[in-house]
Order: sequence, then structure tokens, then C-alpha cells
Amino acid sequence: MSKQVIVLNGGSSAGKSGIVRCLQAILPDPWLAVGVDRLIEAMPATMRSPESIDFAADGTVIVGPEFDRLQEAWMAGVAATVGAGAHVIVDDVFLGGAGSQQRWRAVLDGLDVLWVGVRCAAEVAAGREIARGDRVRGMAVAQADSVHQGVVYDVEVDTTHTESIVCARTIAARL
Amino acid sequence: MSKQVIVLNGGSSAGKSGIVRCLQAILPDPWLAVGVDRLIEAMPATMRSPESIDFAADGTVIVGPEFDRLQEAWMAGVAATVGAGAHVIVDDVFLGGAGSQQRWRAVLDGLDVLWVGVRCAAEVAAGREIARGDRVRGMAVAQADSVHQGVVYDVEVDTTHTESIVCARTIAARL
Amino acid sequence: MSKQVIVLNGGSSAGKSGIVRCLQAILPDPWLAVGVDRLIEAMPATMRSPESIDFAADGTVIVGPEFDRLQEAWMAGVAATVGAGAHVIVDDVFLGGAGSQQRWRAVLDGLDVLWVGVRCAAEVAAGREIARGDRVRGMAVAQADSVHQGVVYDVEVDTTHTESIVCARTIAARL
Amino acid sequence: MSKQVIVLNGGSSAGKSGIVRCLQAILPDPWLAVGVDRLIEAMPATMRSPESIDFAADGTVIVGPEFDRLQEAWMAGVAATVGAGAHVIVDDVFLGGAGSQQRWRAVLDGLDVLWVGVRCAAEVAAGREIARGDRVRGMAVAQADSVHQGVVYDVEVDTTHTESIVCARTIAARL
Repeated sequence: MSKQVIVLNGGSSAGKSGIVRCLQAILPDPWLAVGVDRLIEAMPATMRSPESIDFAADGTVIVGPEFDRLQEAWMAGVAATVGAGAHVIVDDVFLGGAGSQQRWRAVLDGLDVLWVGVRCAAEVAAGREIARGDRVRGMAVAQADSVHQGVVYDVEVDTTHTESIVCARTIAARL
Repeated sequence: MSKQVIVLNGGSSAGKSGIVRCLQAILPDPWLAVGVDRLIEAMPATMRSPESIDFAADGTVIVGPEFDRLQEAWMAGVAATVGAGAHVIVDDVFLGGAGSQQRWRAVLDGLDVLWVGVRCAAEVAAGREIARGDRVRGMAVAQADSVHQGVVYDVEVDTTHTESIVCARTIAARL
Repeated sequence: MSKQVIVLNGGSSAGKSGIVRCLQAILPDPWLAVGVDRLIEAMPATMRSPESIDFAADGTVIVGPEFDRLQEAWMAGVAATVGAGAHVIVDDVFLGGAGSQQRWRAVLDGLDVLWVGVRCAAEVAAGREIARGDRVRGMAVAQADSVHQGVVYDVEVDTTHTESIVCARTIAARL
Repeated sequence: MSKQVIVLNGGSSAGKSGIVRCLQAILPDPWLAVGVDRLIEAMPATMRSPESIDFAADGTVIVGPEFDRLQEAWMAGVAATVGAGAHVIVDDVFLGGAGSQQRWRAVLDGLDVLWVGVRCAAEVAAGREIARGDRVRGMAVAQADSVHQGVVYDVEVDTTHTESIVCARTIAARL
């Protein structure tokens, strides 16, 4: 096992968090789990405004310059954590598709990354969004395909008909 | 629609909570969601001791007399809430199988109940337990079959290969 | 100790929940903790709309007829739980002041109730609202005095300069 | 305002999190909030074992080599995030007292740090630990003084008789 960081990309309610927890449970070494959801929680409450990030009524996410700047700094921090010897799993949503991957590539330059695409059929993700109960409706459908556009992966999993633990085993086999 | 209360029974990590939230989302009237997990949270922290309820290392749940007494009183409260005109969905784990159903039958006597069995293959529920990350390991397997023993249902759903929202629609069709 | 139910009334961020947990910790018998916050969580997500309950931008709470109806049924359930032998602590916000107490009095008729007022200076509660980080701004100030208007208590505590555990001991001494 | 990072040190239940949220609310620029509690959540569930971190029955925290290694890497990440231009508030518990500060000093070398001590009388913190309800009993008392031994601060606040928002204003005035 030589990979130092696993980057999971997928739309909202595609099942990334469950896969992350399964990976942490089955991998022999301890891996730290970080992600954009935790980043948002680390921001001031007022940052969830049109100036920064906003969840529109239709589920579209609008990211402002302030959010962008903090995200960029956070990404540098993730790279440094990996550089300092920790194994890290990143749970992200590439709102910019290939452009988002390019940003991560630049930040993680020189590190051994496993790129993972987490897919889920839009209508299934939409149902899971309802089942979770605490998500803005529409994000799952809005992001299901768009976040994968132009992104290149080492391995792809699809949670539509496959359990988190099985997806995690598929990913772990590629480390 | 004449049913006044829906009782869902299933093992830990079978997917009951997701179905409850989907039911609340698709049913035209507002339904209150109550359940044994919320009941446990309503108890003093010290109640999660061998005297009351305990989650053993192998996932077995041990319920003591104090827990039992409070649960009985809570069940009477649920019945009264329904009797006072609220539609209620109960999310429970029949640790005593048919005996647990008999207790609910006595309490809900005179009310129009829809009994729902929520099944999930033990190995799949075990994987979801890992994916949730905050559950005692082993509960899913320990409860998968035992909670259904001798219980009679109006409708049964199986989340092994069926999404929460689809299960919810199946249940809603029986109201 | 003959009291069967403790009803705590106070504005948002006055410190009721902390007192409830302290009461559960220091009272020799197990007491169930219920409250309007848990009731709201039990409602469908869509119930937090102008038709039911809404947290306006200035912190004013608007309660609609649907919310009111479910609350009434839930109150009947609380009374039945107490009637069935459980000790219960109710954590409520009397948006209607004396009228809210009258509603509880009718529902809890025949039970031995300890009425507790939880006060906190508006400016202090406003600061704690910010410190909690997950509350609508303005509720603390809007409710600090109004919820106590015309309400009659057996005991009053003030968290402005007194810790939760000390308030809990004052209340416990009156049981 | 030239400070780039604020490091708050204090024992469990001293009130650090509330001060962090108040700081985020009152500071004109957006500050990211990170801390050891979030770090622990980012670790695998199994990391809360005698090999890594453990909360003993008396509230003493035992940190193992694996935990230590991940914490060190996480600290490097925090420094890089600050270096990349984000303002960051660190919420930490210096289990090693002056030694912990020395570790942070080495990691944050070259950055403009505001060192803040958050104190709270042990008996008051112990009461708040009960009021929070989800903390291991005894941590507050065990850490109240020990985490400050040999630590040098730019500013100290004491939550025993002072609200979070007031402490936050005191800290903000020193930026």
C-alpha cells in the first residue's frame, strides 16, 4: 500500500460518507477523514450567505469568493497533513468538475493519490436525500452527473445497487 | 386513509428511520415520528447501565426493569397522542418478538394500526452498521431475524435491495 | 417526593436543557425529559412552514393551526405517560404566556405538577444564542420576558448569574 | 488586525467552543474553527482505544502513539492552512501543558499567533459537564488546572463568572 491520500468525488447523497466510514473500518492503518461538509461547518454561520456559499431552493450550490479562498487554504492544509505523514481520505463534491480536480492535482502535487468516483443514479440519490431528511431538496439530482464531467478516476464505484462496504472493499483493493 | 398509527418493527440498521422520514415526506397529512431511539435519549444518561439498558460488546441489548417501566409508560403516552387525534409513526425494535407486539396491541387497543415489518438481510445490515459509524457492532446481525419471530404484519418491506422511498410508497399504499 | 411532573418554562437560550440534564443527573429516580424542541424534530420537515411553525428572521416564532393541533395531541401523550407512572420533566416555551400554562393545567389535571420559571436577562440570553451557533438570532430577546407574562410558578430560577447545576438543586429541593 | 491564528487552550467544559462561535460571529473577517474534538471525529472509530486515545472512567485522557502521530500531522495541516492565507481559530486542550504549547510553537513558527488561556473554576466546569450530558464525567476537574501549567498567554479569560460573548470581545480586542 503506497497511496497516501484517497479523494472521493460524488454528488450529494451519492453515499460518500458511508464509504469513508467503511474504508476507515477495513483499512489496517488509521486514515483521517476530511471533507467539504466539515469545512463548511468550520466556517462562520454567516458564511452561508450569497457572498460565500448558498444552497438555493432548487439545490444548486452557489459558491462565493470568500468561500473559495477559505477552501483553497483548507486544501493546502490537507496536502500538508498528508505530507506530514498522515493517511487522509477526502470526501468532496467537484462542483467545477474537471476544474475542481485540477485544483486538487495542483495542491496534491508530488503525493500519491487514488482518485475515486462515487456515482449514484440521480433518481436513487434523490430518494436517499428525502430519507436523510436534513438535506436541501434537489442537490442530489443537480449534482449526480455534473460533478463527474471531465474527471479522471483510478477507480469508480456506483452505490445505486452496491452497498457502501462493498464499494469500500473495491476501493481498498486498489491501494 | 383511516389508519391512525403505523408501527414499524425491524432490527438495528434495517433502515427504519429512512423509511419514516420518507413516509413523513410523501403522506399528505402530517405524521409525528416517535421511536425507541428517541425514548432512550429522553432517559437519564445513567439509565444506560446494567440496571436498565445496556449495549453489550456483542451487540446484544439487555433491558432492565427500570427501562421496561419507563418504556411501558411511554407507550401509553404514544397511544394517548394518537387517541387525541395525531397521526403517529412508531419506529421500534421488538426485542421480545411476538411478546413486544402483544404489549403494543394492548396499549393501542381500539386504534387503527398498520403493522409493518422492515426486514434486511443480516449481512447487508451489518455492512450498513459499519457505514453509519456510530452504532455498537453486532446489533444488526443479532436483531435481524429475532425481532420478527412470531410477529404478524399487515405489510412487509425488505430494504436489502429496495430503497427507503420505494418501501415508503409500498407502506403508504396500504393506509 | 410526591411531584409527578416538572414543567420548566423559559425563553430560548435561557438554559432550560442544561437544567433538565442536571435534574436527571441528581434526582434519585429516573425522570424522562420531553420538550417542544423534540416535538418539532418529530414533525415532518415541511411542518416548519408558514402553515405550521416558522422562525422569522427576527426570531419571532409563528405557530400555525397544524402545529397547534399536533402539540395539543403531544401534550395529551405527556399527561398519559405521567399517568402511567413515569416521572417526566417538560421543557417548554410558553409562547402564549398564561394561556399556554392554562392549556397545560387542563391537560395535566389531577397530576401533581411543579411549575418552574427559568429566567435569564435578555442580553445574556442573546449572547448565549450566539455562543450556541445553531439558533435563529433574536429568539432569545423576543422570548425572554414575554413567555413569563401571567404565568404562576412554584419556584423560579435565574440563570443569568447562576449555574445550571445550582438551579437544578434549587428545583430538586422543592420536589 | 495582524494576527493570523488564535490558539485557545483550556480544560474540557471550560467553554472554549462557545467562545469560538462568538469570535466567528463578531470578527469582521471569516475565521475557520478547528480543534481537537473535530480531529478525534476525523479518526477511525477504533482509534478511541487504549492504543490511541481513551477516556478513562475518571476522566483522564490517555493518548497513544498512533493518536500522537496523527495529531502532529494535523497540526502541520493547520499551520499550512494559515500559511495559505486563512485566519484560523484553534480550540485545543494542552494535555501536556507547556510541552503542548512548545509543539504548537514549533509548528506555527513564523506565523503571528494570539495565545489565549480559557480558564474556569474546576467545580463550575464540573457542573457544566453534567449540564452538557454527553461528556465523560471527571474530565473537567482533571483538566481544569493541569492544561495551563507552564503555558504562556497573550490574554486570559475566565468563564467562571463571564459570558462567552464577553470573553470573545476581550480576545478580539487583542487582535
